[in-house]
Amino acid sequence: MSGSKLEPVLAHIDANIEIATEHLFDLLRIPSISTDPNFKVDCDTAADWLVQDLKSIGFDASKRTTPGHPMVLAHAGDRGIHLMFYGHYDVQPVDPLGLWDSPPFEPVLESGDLGPVIRARGASDDKGQLMTFVEACRSWKAVHGNLPGKISLFFEGEEESGSPSLVPFMTENSAELTADIALICDTGLFGNNTPGIVTRLRGMLGEELTITGPSKDLHSGMYGGVAINPARILAKIISTLHDDNGRITIPGFYDGVPELSPEMIEQWDGLNFDTAGFLDQVGLSKLAGEHGRTALEMIWSRPTCEVNGIWGGYTGLGFKTVLPSHASAKISFRLVGTQDPNKIRDNFRAVVQSMLPPDCTVKFKSHGSSAGSEMAIDNHAFEAARVALSDEWPEPAAFVGCGGSIPIAGHFKTILGMDAMLIGFARDNDAIHSPNEKYDLRSFHKGIRSWARILHQLYD
Amino acid sequence: MSGSKLEPVLAHIDANIEIATEHLFDLLRIPSISTDPNFKVDCDTAADWLVQDLKSIGFDASKRTTPGHPMVLAHAGDRGIHLMFYGHYDVQPVDPLGLWDSPPFEPVLESGDLGPVIRARGASDDKGQLMTFVEACRSWKAVHGNLPGKISLFFEGEEESGSPSLVPFMTENSAELTADIALICDTGLFGNNTPGIVTRLRGMLGEELTITGPSKDLHSGMYGGVAINPARILAKIISTLHDDNGRITIPGFYDGVPELSPEMIEQWDGLNFDTAGFLDQVGLSKLAGEHGRTALEMIWSRPTCEVNGIWGGYTGLGFKTVLPSHASAKISFRLVGTQDPNKIRDNFRAVVQSMLPPDCTVKFKSHGSSAGSEMAIDNHAFEAARVALSDEWPEPAAFVGCGGSIPIAGHFKTILGMDAMLIGFARDNDAIHSPNEKYDLRSFHKGIRSWARILHQLYD
Repeated sequence: MSGSKLEPVLAHIDANIEIATEHLFDLLRIPSISTDPNFKVDCDTAADWLVQDLKSIGFDASKRTTPGHPMVLAHAGDRGIHLMFYGHYDVQPVDPLGLWDSPPFEPVLESGDLGPVIRARGASDDKGQLMTFVEACRSWKAVHGNLPGKISLFFEGEEESGSPSLVPFMTENSAELTADIALICDTGLFGNNTPGIVTRLRGMLGEELTITGPSKDLHSGMYGGVAINPARILAKIISTLHDDNGRITIPGFYDGVPELSPEMIEQWDGLNFDTAGFLDQVGLSKLAGEHGRTALEMIWSRPTCEVNGIWGGYTGLGFKTVLPSHASAKISFRLVGTQDPNKIRDNFRAVVQSMLPPDCTVKFKSHGSSAGSEMAIDNHAFEAARVALSDEWPEPAAFVGCGGSIPIAGHFKTILGMDAMLIGFARDNDAIHSPNEKYDLRSFHKGIRSWARILHQLYD
Repeated sequence: MSGSKLEPVLAHIDANIEIATEHLFDLLRIPSISTDPNFKVDCDTAADWLVQDLKSIGFDASKRTTPGHPMVLAHAGDRGIHLMFYGHYDVQPVDPLGLWDSPPFEPVLESGDLGPVIRARGASDDKGQLMTFVEACRSWKAVHGNLPGKISLFFEGEEESGSPSLVPFMTENSAELTADIALICDTGLFGNNTPGIVTRLRGMLGEELTITGPSKDLHSGMYGGVAINPARILAKIISTLHDDNGRITIPGFYDGVPELSPEMIEQWDGLNFDTAGFLDQVGLSKLAGEHGRTALEMIWSRPTCEVNGIWGGYTGLGFKTVLPSHASAKISFRLVGTQDPNKIRDNFRAVVQSMLPPDCTVKFKSHGSSAGSEMAIDNHAFEAARVALSDEWPEPAAFVGCGGSIPIAGHFKTILGMDAMLIGFARDNDAIHSPNEKYDLRSFHKGIRSWARILHQLYD
């Protein structure tokens, strides 16, 4: 492999990083919040923007409608390994808006701990990340007149809202979507100087429940101490979902959760993960999960049950002495190994039902599910990527796990029979899903360079 | 006592009930929500309205400013027993607004189970009730040219928001506010045909707590299973506040809670309270409080601890896989006997503090407190009222308890040394503090007539 085709591409990337950043700002200005129907048109606008951009660098790009938000699909080239790059153009909601230091859809460059950062909702998750690959392609095309090989891109607009259209779309378009390997850019660096290639992902199950007692809100003077209070029932149910050792009490919950091999434990211990720093950056000092597990073990290999939202009764200013008619919670489970999301949903719902006192009813709403997944790293692309990333970054790349759920990786495997390689440049302090989300300009810049190196490793 | 002065007043009331209702509608149109600062000007408007109205029937009425919402004070006459009638012109918030069948501040007459009802926020609590007394005075004045005796009125605008200005105001104006007996119209009929004179009231303690864990909302994929979740901690704390028998577990909570005498139990049993109907009208079938207690016993003589509101994390549409930085609850306690609100507040806060895991902090906010109170019914006015009410209603009046908290009754006693007589015409199905609040036109009409009869008993 010669460096002759790579070096001018890297130089072009360096020379054009400001233009690439301004270009990303355009995409970040589109408030494509997929979970909120009020932003449906903005999701559509983001898809159109991507189609136009991909066309401008030689891709045969198109927007594909679904019952939900549209997909973007693009193809170019016919040489060498067929890559299918995946990203998502939708973003998380922005509340609480008052905690943002600048408007979430007005991107700005600010200074950060490792140099400038791009501040905006979606800067890191996932618009900034997906544009690293697009910019690598743009520079390659600009320097060499064409793309390096057979490259497809697939952008989704429902990743932050359970991807309801994804599986049907992949099933219906399986021929067009099948390639030699999938690339997914929605994960983080392992350390500030150490890129990671993710080989295992947790799955997720999202549940919403509403417990109803009285047929309407009641006066706590008139009915207090006599009528059932659904907020208290909900609290009681939530309080029993974990035991005193941090283990989840739902029957059969740990079926299919493998213990780590001693080799894997040793490998992860060798990464010298900075647990104290990881906690400290969010104001914490103690691990709060299952007793006797390390942080990496819990994040990468253990399932969870968490309350994402809870509400009921009067929550405004002042005080209202009301007994709420109903109380609700959004609860999510991160899943690993061969845990069966459907079985866990059934068992969770049965536990809730079993704890309901007389006069209480419950309604459940499903917010999607996916199983955990593990990659087959014997595909030679993994080694090519490891070499390329190790060339770009100060420290060698590591094969790591990821606590988040990127169901698309499992879908590529089960629906299309493809391995997926998850490479991303986010940092733990990017505040994704939180106020003041940011993406380091360094992540963006070295991310683009990383993809150029990977393309070079795979095609030249 | 002759009926000569009473009969023409009752006739005037009957002939003018439509005008009186329209007049009440004017007051109901003013959205005087005291707990929400956005409605401050409306509270002021309601006070002005009352001042003008009282002046029009011969009272020397004025608005008195406080650090919060204003008081209304009015005086007239110099003959006989000095009555101090109390009511409150502020109302509860109206959310959830979507559950109202008509706009809460656009009063309408609709049909109800016992004839027409006045539908609006405040129709029953307390604008409709306080206007029963005002209309009785108006008719007396219209018929006889003057009021029957020495009558004062005292209207508050902060009853629904903890009455922060009340005690200072009563202390500073004690001479002007002291009368022979207080009349309070903020309670209900005992049965549809049975008026009640309340002789005991529960006190209340309002607490708001916010538990904070991480310094910001976190991604549940990145931190789930590792970071402490304050929504789970809050649920656990709430779940331990009651034991399996429905008793409150806060240390010392039952200090000062008297058991009922056998005589009182027998008297209340004799009221033949329709527990099944009381529960059924709000969609319930089972008593949910302390095991082994009757409904009346629990409502009138037992303390409570209830969640009035709970919130934390993402509560909007769709799903957001966030670990909340903080979670909050509004919790109120109804108090009886000689329970000490300050001691209970301290012990509650200590329990919460003791349950906080590492990395969690709590902030408390007080929403007011008052002790329970019991009236001395040997004052002859109680017997006079019992006779008058028994004349107006199909069944004789009963001396009863009240589960609600009307701290003003205790304040009249402790600050001014006055007994208070609580007489009201609300019904259990009035939906006070709830959507679709109403007041039976029958309650309004017979309430006005009841006060005319009481005035007659006391003055002629």
